[in-house]
Parts: sequence; C-alpha cells; structure tokens
Amino acid sequence: MALKISIFGAGNGGITAAADMTEKGHEVTLHQSKNSQRDLSSIAETGVINFNGKPVRIHKFTREVEEAVRGKDVIVLTIPAIAVEPIAEKLAPYLEDGQYVFINSASAMNSLRFKRVLNNMKRDIDVKVGETMSLTYASRYDQETNEATLISYNEHNLFAAYPSRFTEEMLEVLGRMYDHLKPAKNIIETTLNNGNPESHPGPSILNAGRIDYAGDDFYLYKEGITEHTVNVIHKIDAERQQICRMLDFEAMSKSERSVRSGYFEKRESLREQYNHSPVLADIKGPGDLENRYVTEDVSNGLVLWASIGDACGVETPVMDAVITLAGVLLGRDYFSEGVTLRKLGIEEADAARLNALMEYDHTK
Amino acid sequence: MALKISIFGAGNGGITAAADMTEKGHEVTLHQSKNSQRDLSSIAETGVINFNGKPVRIHKFTREVEEAVRGKDVIVLTIPAIAVEPIAEKLAPYLEDGQYVFINSASAMNSLRFKRVLNNMKRDIDVKVGETMSLTYASRYDQETNEATLISYNEHNLFAAYPSRFTEEMLEVLGRMYDHLKPAKNIIETTLNNGNPESHPGPSILNAGRIDYAGDDFYLYKEGITEHTVNVIHKIDAERQQICRMLDFEAMSKSERSVRSGYFEKRESLREQYNHSPVLADIKGPGDLENRYVTEDVSNGLVLWASIGDACGVETPVMDAVITLAGVLLGRDYFSEGVTLRKLGIEEADAARLNALMEYDHTK
Repeated sequence: MALKISIFGAGNGGITAAADMTEKGHEVTLHQSKNSQRDLSSIAETGVINFNGKPVRIHKFTREVEEAVRGKDVIVLTIPAIAVEPIAEKLAPYLEDGQYVFINSASAMNSLRFKRVLNNMKRDIDVKVGETMSLTYASRYDQETNEATLISYNEHNLFAAYPSRFTEEMLEVLGRMYDHLKPAKNIIETTLNNGNPESHPGPSILNAGRIDYAGDDFYLYKEGITEHTVNVIHKIDAERQQICRMLDFEAMSKSERSVRSGYFEKRESLREQYNHSPVLADIKGPGDLENRYVTEDVSNGLVLWASIGDACGVETPVMDAVITLAGVLLGRDYFSEGVTLRKLGIEEADAARLNALMEYDHTK
Repeated sequence: MALKISIFGAGNGGITAAADMTEKGHEVTLHQSKNSQRDLSSIAETGVINFNGKPVRIHKFTREVEEAVRGKDVIVLTIPAIAVEPIAEKLAPYLEDGQYVFINSASAMNSLRFKRVLNNMKRDIDVKVGETMSLTYASRYDQETNEATLISYNEHNLFAAYPSRFTEEMLEVLGRMYDHLKPAKNIIETTLNNGNPESHPGPSILNAGRIDYAGDDFYLYKEGITEHTVNVIHKIDAERQQICRMLDFEAMSKSERSVRSGYFEKRESLREQYNHSPVLADIKGPGDLENRYVTEDVSNGLVLWASIGDACGVETPVMDAVITLAGVLLGRDYFSEGVTLRKLGIEEADAARLNALMEYDHTK
C-alpha cells in the first residue's frame, strides 16, 4: 500500500529519497527549508528529479511546513543531528496523531530529542519517532543537471524507535519503504553505530594542517586516512565497542559493520577499506575544518558517545583527546557545547538503567 | 683564557660548535659516537670544517670516549634528551674532578638525569653539570661540502646548573664560550622554556595525514602551522605559562621569548612568526611521523611538562590530548614510556618543594 510521505531536508539524501520513494510507488512531498539557499528551482517548477538517469516526477515540492506535514503517513527527516531540535519546533504545531516521524540520518539519540521538544511544547500527540544508525543511502545530487545518483543502499541499517517498544510497529510501516532496516535494541544502539564520529573528526583534525593548507584539494577517505591516522579510528572503535558490550549490544568492529552495510569491501586493513571504498573514496573534502565532519560529529557524536561511556563506566581517553583538540582548533569547548546524556535529561544512569530508560518515554 | 673543550654529539649543532669554539680560541675536540653512521671522514682526516665559508681547523676529531674526556675543562653535549642517560654511562668512567658538563641541547632536566646516572654508578666525582633551555645555535651542516653554517645564535638562552647553586660558577666558565647565556632559577625553568614540545608534537600530529601522504615534501613551520593548528600551540603555551607562574618563574609567551632569542621576528601573529621565521621556515620535514619531533618531544617534552604541571596543581588537558594522540598514532603509551618527575625520583612535591629540591643534589 502506498504511503503519503514527506521528506524534510532537501540535501543529497533527501532529494535521492524523494525520487527513490516515488519510484517505489509512494506519494512523496519534498520540503525545502526557507533558510536553505540551495537552488532547487528545477524541481520546484517541474516536480521532476533525474534519478539514476531517468526522470521521476514527485508528488509535490513545497517550502511550507504545514502543507508538508498535514495528512501524511510518514515524515522523513534527512537532516543533520544539530537540526533535530529546530525542526521539531517547526513541525510540532502541525503534527497529527498516528503519524510516524522517521529520522533518516546520522543517529544521535535524535528521536528522544525530537520527543523532548514536543513535550516541552506541550504537544501531547501520538506521534511515533524513530531513527536509523545512518542515512539509508550513499548518494549524490548535482544541481546543474538536477541529477540524483543513488550510489548504494546501506544494506544493513539499524533502526530503533524511541521509546523502543514501538520499534517493531515502525519497522512494519517503514519496511514498505526500505528493505534494509534492522531492529536495534534502542536508539542508544543506533547512536553507537553511527559511523561518522569515527570516520570524520579524528582523521579531520589529524589532517588539520593539510586542510588549511590545501583547501579544496583534499580527499579525506582516500588521502587522509593513512598508516598512522587509522590507528586513532581503531582506538575509538575499541572504546565504542566496549561501551556496546557494557550495554549488551552487538559489538561489531567498524570494519565488519561497514562490510555488512556494503560501504566497505573486504580488504586487508581498515585503512585500505577507507582508501578504496567504492562509496566513500571519491568524496571530496572537507575543504575547511569548520565543517560538519568536525562540528557536528564532535558535538553530536563523540561528546555523546563519551558521555554514554561515562555512564557505563567505560573510559574514553582517545575520544576525549579528539574532542579536546577539535575544540582547541576551532576555538570552542565541545565538552560543554556538545550533546550529553545530562543535557537530554538523563542523569545518574548506569548501563542497565540506560537501556530501561529507552523503553518508555521519559521526556514527558 | 682558552678552554679545553670536548664536544659529544657530532650533529649539526656539535659540528657548528666545534668550529665556532675553535674560532673563539678554544682547544676543541669533536667526538663522534661509534654508533653514528654519519660520514665525517673529511673532518676526521683533515680536522678542517668549512665554517661560514672559511676553513677552521679543530684540535682533534676522535671516536674514543676516554681521549675526548681526559684533561678537558668543559664537556659539551649536543645530543638529544633521550641520549642523556646512555652518554652519561659512557662518560662516567673517565670524568675527572673539576670538569664541567655543559648539556647544550633541548632542556629536559638533563643535568639531573646525568647526575643520577653517575650516582647510580657510584661515581662520586666533583663534576658540575648544567643545561641550556635549547641549543645555542640555529645551524646547518652539509656533509658533501663539509660546510657548517651558523645561521644565528640563540640570543637569550636560559641556563641552569643542577644543583642550581652552581649556576653562577658554571656561567662564569661558559661565559668565555658564549655571550648569550642567562641564568635561570633552575633546570625546571630551562625545561619549561625548551621550545620544542610546543613547536613540534602538536603541529606534527595535526599534520599526520599530510606527513604520511606527502612524505618528504613537507615544511612544518612554513606549511604545517596554520590558522587552526596554531591554536593548539597557543593553548599548550598557556598551560606551560601557568606552570611557570606556579613555580615563580618568568612566564613569557612563546612568541615573545622567540623574538628575544632572535628566532622570530615581531609580527602580527604567532602563525606568521612561524611561517616567516628566518631561522625555522625553510627547515624541511618531518618526512615521517616516527621522528624526534614526535618521539623525543613527547616522551622527553610534553610528558615531563604535564608531570610538572601535575605536581604544581596545573591541569594540562591540551598537552594530555597531544600526548594521547601521538601515542595512538605511533602505537605507544607515552604517559608510561615518557620521562616524568616520578621516574626522576621526585614524588609528592608541590611547586615550592620542586624549587627547593633543585637547590641541592638529591640524586645521591
């Protein structure tokens, strides 16, 4: 049965999702934020996206929030984690009982954060919210040619609702959109399987001089993950896996998990997997240290992981070192600016308590 | 009055010192370690060093320790800090009462370490030992042409003996060799004014990807100290200055101090001072992360500073972050491998006690 889907966040992922979901037979509305400067006039005027070489006509393109929310079955958010709270505020007035909010993005306890905003705004509606560990696609969008390219699906993408007892219900609905969603225990598990906090900030700061010096001519995955810098990824991965074990989650290495997702090939080393990833290797940048690779993936990534580690009694010296230096490089204190369990209203919880807390909505 | 001087450590600094001291009228013996692979056959055969374009004939070149030690007034060590203990062991059997050991190198409580070796070996001789904050020269040596170039003197080079009550006596003797030595309170002050732990490890690890990727084609001072990476130097400098204040030392910024030494020009920013330093900018490298810029300047630099900070109640999160990541990059634990006060036999000392300890020889 076709779903009425709205997609908020008209970036590469959102535009690809709009075309892909339309192709799969759903009725898709694509929403572009009024703040977005991106020129999407050709989609706006014609409703057409050239998708993997074929024109696909979406149901509607809009910049009005109300129009994009009312009457929809599923609201998809393909947005950075730092945008979760602002978008929740914008959507809150229009959300309707029975809707599903699917945060299809880099997981950072986004669903709980979304719910917190609704509850702070006293919007007591029966909306179910869940999130993937990471975006369902590797994709590109070329504005000039209005061409969206779906490079590959994430072939094993963990998903959880918050509270977690709705994961199964949401997967039944979202399963009509995506084949590769797999249930996680809760959104802490999806958060700990977001690949970005490992792949981005460490290697970026260990290439800070180069990024400053070379500017645009830099490929992090191909050139910046080297014999030595990859060691920092390994150590952060070990810290992350230890947190997973304390929480009784699957503790799979970055390397194995990315093979399972289809983003890495099986190769001799993690460095080679990055350098030769069919999905990642040719992605350019970051061209500036002041980039989501550092700003978002530290503030909404490593800082949150470290705070979960703290709750579980796992020391995270390498995460902490990257957080510290990223802050110094950019003139900030990410430990105080970043997202922590405490800021999400969770205090004095150990591993067992954290898992228990995810089972019901404690934001009310 | 001419001094009989021996110089151990036939690197750029040692060869330059041999020529410079000869020119100043002293009788100079240059010692090359038997382990050194450097081809100094032209000095060995002729005794001549082409010094700033002019041939200078030194008194003697030798690879025998005993010959280089016996009967000398001053033994100069132009060696890396990590070589202090091994060279002390080699010299110990031949040292004579009344000799001065002048460790002309990057300060890392080297004099105390030298004395500890003598005392562990039960060599109870009246040798006075002191050290500069950093090498007296910026210099080069070209093996092909046997040409030593004295680029510039460090024009304000702190010096202290260990124990510190011999600083004045040593400066009277060493003042016949160098004009620019200035008394420091003790070797902890010289250690905290060694420029390398600030200039080298932070910027090196923040260029780790580049060093791995670009190999030989890299200039740390000119290219690797950038808009963002310089912030790490500033923060480490602030931590270092705070330690200096707790110890009642002069707390001068890196920038000011390097202007005073003649290594930096007055410029708008520390980054520009590095990028355009007449002394540093054209120094190539490091071409490999496994380099003294990281290995020595973390293990014998930042780790020691952080341990002094610890004793003085000064937190050093940025030093610690660089130490942590340098270790991860190179697969080591520098906190346990590096030189600390505890390893030098100093425990449970606060700032006042540290200064008091430097006044007498507590290694006996």
